[in-house]
Amino acid sequence: MKLRSIKGGVTAAKGFLASGVSAGIKRSRKPDISLTVADDLVTAAAVFTRNQVQAPPVHISRLRVGGGKARAVLINSGCANCMTGKPGFDDAYRLSKEVADLLDIDDKSVLVASTGIIGRRLPVPRMLRVLPKLVKKLSRAGNRAAAQAILTTDIMPKEAAVEARISGRLCRVGGMAKGAGMIAPSMATMLCVITTDVSIEAGLLRELLRQASDATFNRISVDGDMSTNDTVYVLASGRSGVKIGRGSAAAKTFLAMLTKVAEDLAFLIVKDGEGASRLMRVDVTGARSDAEALACAKQVAFSPLVKTMLAGSDPNVGRIAGAVGASSAKIDPDKLEIFLGKHCAVRGGVTTNLSKAVMRQELSHAFVPVRVNLHVGSGKAWMLTCDLSHEYVRINAGYAT
Amino acid sequence: MKLRSIKGGVTAAKGFLASGVSAGIKRSRKPDISLTVADDLVTAAAVFTRNQVQAPPVHISRLRVGGGKARAVLINSGCANCMTGKPGFDDAYRLSKEVADLLDIDDKSVLVASTGIIGRRLPVPRMLRVLPKLVKKLSRAGNRAAAQAILTTDIMPKEAAVEARISGRLCRVGGMAKGAGMIAPSMATMLCVITTDVSIEAGLLRELLRQASDATFNRISVDGDMSTNDTVYVLASGRSGVKIGRGSAAAKTFLAMLTKVAEDLAFLIVKDGEGASRLMRVDVTGARSDAEALACAKQVAFSPLVKTMLAGSDPNVGRIAGAVGASSAKIDPDKLEIFLGKHCAVRGGVTTNLSKAVMRQELSHAFVPVRVNLHVGSGKAWMLTCDLSHEYVRINAGYAT
Repeated sequence: MKLRSIKGGVTAAKGFLASGVSAGIKRSRKPDISLTVADDLVTAAAVFTRNQVQAPPVHISRLRVGGGKARAVLINSGCANCMTGKPGFDDAYRLSKEVADLLDIDDKSVLVASTGIIGRRLPVPRMLRVLPKLVKKLSRAGNRAAAQAILTTDIMPKEAAVEARISGRLCRVGGMAKGAGMIAPSMATMLCVITTDVSIEAGLLRELLRQASDATFNRISVDGDMSTNDTVYVLASGRSGVKIGRGSAAAKTFLAMLTKVAEDLAFLIVKDGEGASRLMRVDVTGARSDAEALACAKQVAFSPLVKTMLAGSDPNVGRIAGAVGASSAKIDPDKLEIFLGKHCAVRGGVTTNLSKAVMRQELSHAFVPVRVNLHVGSGKAWMLTCDLSHEYVRINAGYAT
Repeated sequence: MKLRSIKGGVTAAKGFLASGVSAGIKRSRKPDISLTVADDLVTAAAVFTRNQVQAPPVHISRLRVGGGKARAVLINSGCANCMTGKPGFDDAYRLSKEVADLLDIDDKSVLVASTGIIGRRLPVPRMLRVLPKLVKKLSRAGNRAAAQAILTTDIMPKEAAVEARISGRLCRVGGMAKGAGMIAPSMATMLCVITTDVSIEAGLLRELLRQASDATFNRISVDGDMSTNDTVYVLASGRSGVKIGRGSAAAKTFLAMLTKVAEDLAFLIVKDGEGASRLMRVDVTGARSDAEALACAKQVAFSPLVKTMLAGSDPNVGRIAGAVGASSAKIDPDKLEIFLGKHCAVRGGVTTNLSKAVMRQELSHAFVPVRVNLHVGSGKAWMLTCDLSHEYVRINAGYAT
């Protein structure tokens, strides 16, 4: 199985067009509305936030994608259209109807998503005015503009795509995402659209998307919060002619492609976390089970003390141990082992004589690998997180202002 | 039942002396070692951290206090004596033996506690040199010096005391605490010594201490982390002549006194949380159970997005709703109600037209009450937290440096 990373993002796969423009939802006048359209009605699947407070676009799209088909995805940034009640539903319906009319398609085949401030209504008239332009700009080269238009406090657009041969035929998976704040397991404040040109049945597509998300988007954390609007869509056009059957070698390759795109996007999300200056990967091994290893990795990755330590490259490995001990994973404190990079900082539950200078060095890299071995079993898991910096506080102390 | 707040902290109750000096553990040369001594061997109880990584002083003191008696409490700040292995045990034994010899008491009646950086050995020779002075300085007026000497990144010493009449006789409860970083349920990075002059059996004292702690220290959060050294001690001298029997009216009054002192200390801990500029009390009502209400209150109080919003007085009530929806408490999103102070910001799951200016005003007070009514039951709980500020990041990005 050979995957090759390629350009093209959400339009890398055959059968998709995209565009992004500014509707003036954001005061900055940056692009804030994007459209991805398939040439035909195609197979579709999605995973949504598990937050109990969910925005109208989430409710509407869950129903629409339930049939396993979709034609278009309309996303706006700058306003989450959440806690807006029935008027919020009406706004989302109205916008998707208008897009459907312009594209001459069924409005039930239009999926929607919104991201931004919670509790405000969408500026619908302004958005309606710009929809003809958004549709007109649809093109195979529109992937970057679409990726730009879904960003909120993100600095960089996030795109990824891969291609591989399955049964001799070339097929592709590509996508775009937005992240930044509130990134946590269960995909907080992230939106993602993935497209592919394989041919696949909707139920299988949903299963594989779930697996790929669990292994990627659910392993990243910026601040441990969980959002009301998180959504990952995947649309499959079938235009490569490659068929993906359940349990086949082709399915295995396709899952690897899907996971690779999701993983690349997840990495970009954490890298561009609000105020992030460096990344930390927490690898936990030797837990009683994979689930306990994950609980332990999360406790470390979510700890504000660990994350501020990382921001300051402050050699305070006791904070990692404290987080490990606070997790629901059963440990034996006398067996605990912690590595910073290649250096053992804790062995048998006791700090080694690793120098502060070396620890500070390890903690000042752009990517800091931390390995925790609990030595009580064979369970393992990892989490990817970023530091908690002054910049995070600056951004979030005035987000709605 | 009439409780009166009084001065005197850990020596307010009859039968106790205290002192605090500098042993040079802290580079700042601020006071860093404190001693509290009862006139006789007295009844004692404690609650300890539930972190699985526990410092040697915690292990040693749990065994010693298990017998229900103690005579002295030796606490140092500046070094947690944690993850120090057998040498860490030896250091704590050595120090308590020396104190016992100086006081001419049994070393098994000396309880110990340490707070500060994890993973470093105590500077024992320096500490031994200062112990005679620490013992010499013991006095009824030494409460403030003792309270000073247990601080780490705290700004203010934390003392509280109350008196009340039980069966016509005056009795007292008083104490001191240190908090600052890592404050969370299960009493993260807090130490506390409470003394009283009532006469009570150790088992009952332990039960009442547990109840008082659950209602106070376990309801506060600075950053959601949980420490390796947290300890609350209570010593009862019996010198007031007031006897506290199980299930009596006296026990009820004594519990109220204990809870009041713990509550005052808990409030001071959050108020002095690292970088805290304001407090937020999250009251959750209408949950299916008290346990679910507490889970919900914790999710809100621990959310970095809510805490940074509070730092900036940023009117972003959607973040509170997002945290509520992310909690394990079952909610009906369409019934959710949120108040900022007296103002309803969310009703029936929809944001009201409460102006940004009013919200900003409410969020800029020194004490911000937030009420969340889930309207699905009668469970209720509260949490007290502080904002997440630049100052928190500044302190924690360079703590060990």
